[in-house]
Amino acid sequence: MARLQRLSGFPEWLPEGQVVEQLVEDTAREVFELHGFAGLRTRAVEPLEQLLRKGEIDKEVYVLRRLHAEEGEPDAGLGLHFDLTVPFARYVLEHAGQLEFPFKRYQIQKVWRGERPQEGRFREFTQADIDVVGRDSLAFHYEVEMALTMATLLDRLPIPRAVIQVNNRKLAEGFFLGVGADDPAAVLRAVDKIDKIGPEATERLLVADAGLTAAGARACLELAGIRSEDASFADRVRALGVRNDLLDQGIEELVAVVEGARRERPGAVVADLRIARGLDYYTGTVYETELVGHESVGSIASGGRYDSLASDGRQTYPGVGISLGVTRLVSILLGRGLVTVSRPVPSAVLVAVVDEEARSASLAVAGALRARGIACEVAPAADKFGKQIKYADRRGIPYVWFPEDGAHSVKDIRSGDQQAADPLRWEPPEEDRLPQVRSVETQEARS
Amino acid sequence: MARLQRLSGFPEWLPEGQVVEQLVEDTAREVFELHGFAGLRTRAVEPLEQLLRKGEIDKEVYVLRRLHAEEGEPDAGLGLHFDLTVPFARYVLEHAGQLEFPFKRYQIQKVWRGERPQEGRFREFTQADIDVVGRDSLAFHYEVEMALTMATLLDRLPIPRAVIQVNNRKLAEGFFLGVGADDPAAVLRAVDKIDKIGPEATERLLVADAGLTAAGARACLELAGIRSEDASFADRVRALGVRNDLLDQGIEELVAVVEGARRERPGAVVADLRIARGLDYYTGTVYETELVGHESVGSIASGGRYDSLASDGRQTYPGVGISLGVTRLVSILLGRGLVTVSRPVPSAVLVAVVDEEARSASLAVAGALRARGIACEVAPAADKFGKQIKYADRRGIPYVWFPEDGAHSVKDIRSGDQQAADPLRWEPPEEDRLPQVRSVETQEARS
Repeated sequence: MARLQRLSGFPEWLPEGQVVEQLVEDTAREVFELHGFAGLRTRAVEPLEQLLRKGEIDKEVYVLRRLHAEEGEPDAGLGLHFDLTVPFARYVLEHAGQLEFPFKRYQIQKVWRGERPQEGRFREFTQADIDVVGRDSLAFHYEVEMALTMATLLDRLPIPRAVIQVNNRKLAEGFFLGVGADDPAAVLRAVDKIDKIGPEATERLLVADAGLTAAGARACLELAGIRSEDASFADRVRALGVRNDLLDQGIEELVAVVEGARRERPGAVVADLRIARGLDYYTGTVYETELVGHESVGSIASGGRYDSLASDGRQTYPGVGISLGVTRLVSILLGRGLVTVSRPVPSAVLVAVVDEEARSASLAVAGALRARGIACEVAPAADKFGKQIKYADRRGIPYVWFPEDGAHSVKDIRSGDQQAADPLRWEPPEEDRLPQVRSVETQEARS
Repeated sequence: MARLQRLSGFPEWLPEGQVVEQLVEDTAREVFELHGFAGLRTRAVEPLEQLLRKGEIDKEVYVLRRLHAEEGEPDAGLGLHFDLTVPFARYVLEHAGQLEFPFKRYQIQKVWRGERPQEGRFREFTQADIDVVGRDSLAFHYEVEMALTMATLLDRLPIPRAVIQVNNRKLAEGFFLGVGADDPAAVLRAVDKIDKIGPEATERLLVADAGLTAAGARACLELAGIRSEDASFADRVRALGVRNDLLDQGIEELVAVVEGARRERPGAVVADLRIARGLDYYTGTVYETELVGHESVGSIASGGRYDSLASDGRQTYPGVGISLGVTRLVSILLGRGLVTVSRPVPSAVLVAVVDEEARSASLAVAGALRARGIACEVAPAADKFGKQIKYADRRGIPYVWFPEDGAHSVKDIRSGDQQAADPLRWEPPEEDRLPQVRSVETQEARS
C-alpha cells in the first residue's frame, strides 16, 4: 500500500479523541431525550434541486455519481447534505401524514461541505440538531425551550463556559424598515459582516449597497452594539428612537426569550443585537453560541425560527431549531488541550492468562465481570505477568485480574495495591468503570 | 416545494423504526465495549485507488466531486467507502505509530454501495463492525472471540434465533489443492455459487472453469454439504479421503472455533463448509450469519480472518473481524413485523399546562423529573385537559402530570389510574422509563 496522506478537512480522531466525541454525542442525546426529542436519521443524500434551494451554499455541495453510472439512473443528480435542517424539512413533508405535530426530533449525523478547511471548519463534520415543527402554526414558547435545552447541554459538557447569544429577525427587520430600508435583507447581509470588516466599512456598505441614509446606517450600527443579559436591551433599542410595529413585536419576543432563559439558567443566554445568521429563512429568534475564550473559532451552536422552510403548497410547517457543531467543539477541545481522557479503551480490567491451557478460566472471569456491566478484555498471550501488566498499562487499563486457582486477586496497577477478589462480586470504583473526560479548566469529570 | 419521491435504496425510518435501529446500535456498542473494543470512526471518503483495490466491488463505488470543483483539487478522486474494513485498514496504517497492538476497535457507521436495491440490500446502510488487528502476528484465539462476541450480541437483540456459520479458508483451500486444483480461488468462486445456481451447475463449473476432475468436483460438493454443531464435521471431511497439510491445519482451527464457541454458547455457532465469502482477502476463519426463518435475505453478520489486507511494505497487520448489517437486520424486523415498539418518543410523561400564565410551574415539574432522568415534555398549549391527554395518547406517552396548586397528581392514561404525586419523588415503573422494543416471537422486551 502506498504511503498515505491525511485529507485536509476530513478529521479523524485517535481512540482517545473518539472518547471525547462520543461523550459529547452521548450527552447531547441524553439531554435531548430528557426534553422529549425523538431520535431521527435521514439519508446522507438529497436531490440536488433540494440542496440548491438555499442559494448561498450551492458552491459547497458534493455531488455523487456511481463510478459505472448508466444514463438516466434514479440516483443521478444526488448530493451529500450540507446540514440537517434541509433534509429534516424534506422528511417532514414526505412523512407528514405519519407524524404527530408539533414534532420534536433530534438528529446527530455527519454533513459535508466543500469549503476551504481551517480551524473549526471542516469538509466532513458532525452536527447535533434539535428542532420542533408544527403544522400551520408553532407556539412561540418553543423559541425559549430551544435556548434552554441547548444551555442545559452546554452546561453538562466538560467545556469552557458557553454563552448563547440571541437576536430576533422581527426586531432587526422592523428596525431596518423603521430607518427607511427598502430591502431589509440587504441591511442584514451588511450587518452580518461587522466582525469581518469592522464597523466603518459596514457603515459604508449600509449606505452604498443597502441604500440607507447616513443617519439610518449609524442607527443600525448602534443597534448592533447592544448586548444585555436581561430585558434592559429593550430600553436601549427604544432610545434609538425608531418606531415600527414589527420592531415592537420583535422586542417583545426577544425579552421573552432572554427573561425566560434567565429565570432557569442565569447567564447562559444573552441578547446580542449583532447576531444576524447568514441564512435567509429565519423569521424570529436566531441563536449563536460563543465559547468564552475561544470566540475566534466561531459559533458552536446556531439556529433560529423558520416559518416557511417546509411547505408543500397547501400546508406550511413552521419550526425552530438549534444545531451543536460537534466536530468543531471536539476539535477545539482536543486541539487546544482543554480536556484530558483517563484511558482510550473501554476496558476497566485486563484478565491475565496464567497459561494458554487455562485461557478458558480467564474467559470465565471476563464473562462474570461483563455480566455485571464491567468492560474487560483477556490478555492476548500467557506471557510473564510483568508483560501482561505492561499491556494494561500501555492502554490505561487500571486493573489486572489474576485468575489463579482458588486464589483470584485483582491489582490496581496505578497504586500497586493487590487484593483477593471474587469475580461474582468485585466492583471497580465508579470513576474507573468508564473512560473519564475531564475539563482541564474545571477538573470536573464526565463519563 | 415539489412533490417528493422516496429514493429507492436509501431507507429512512419513521420515529418508531428509529427506536428499533437505535436499540440495535446501543446493544452492539454495549456488548462491544464490554468486550474491550474501543469506539472508532473513520471519514466517509477514501481515495478511489484505495477503494478499487478490491476489484470485485469497483462498479459499486460512489464518486464525489464538488459542484464547482476546480482543476487539481485535493479532494478530487474521492469516493464514499463501501464497507468499514478497508477504511479501518487504511486508518491502522496511517496511525500505526500511535496505536497499541493488538488493537481492538468497533465502528458503527453508514456505508454506500451503488448496487441494485432489493429486500435487505440498500445503497446506503449502517454496519456495526468489530475487528482486532495485530502487528506482524495475531493470535488465533481472536477468531473464537469474534464469533463469541457477535453471538453474545445476537442473543441480546429482540430478533429471531441467529446462527453463525463458520468455515475456514485453509480447510477449503487445502481440500481443493488435495483434489488437484491448480487455482483454489477459482474453486472457491464456483462453490460460492451453490445457493444461486444449484449443485449440478456448480459441479459443471468446477470442471469447466476450475479445471477439476469429475471426482474432484464431486468431492468439493460433498465437502460443501457438511454441517455440524460440534467437531464431528472433522471426521466427515477426513472420510472424503483427501490429504493435505493445509487442510489438516484448517480442520484443527475450525474445530477450535466451533468447540470454543460451543462451550460458551451451545447452538450459536455451527461449522458449515458451504460458507465461502466472496472477498478474496480472507485467510482463515470466515463467518456468515443466518436469521432462522429469514434465510432468504442473506447473512446478517459476516466477516473473517485476513492476513495481508493492511501492509505498508515493511510490516503487515493481520486481523479478524465481523460486521453486523444493522440496516438489513432492522429492515427485516420492521418489514416483516417481527417487533413492536411501545412508543415512538422518549417522553414517559407529558406535563400538562393549567393556563399559559402557569407554564413556568409546568416547566418546574419537568425540570424536577428530568433531574432524576425521567424524559418528559410540557404540553404545547393550555388546552382543556382532555385535549392535552389526547396529545399524550397519540404519541404513546403513558403518563400525564397535572401540576395543580398544592395538589400535583399523575395519571396513567392507559389504565385511567390517577394518584397524588411529588415531582421530587415520583418514579415511573422501570418498563415505562424508555421506549421498549419487544420481539413478536418471544415477547421478550428490550429497552
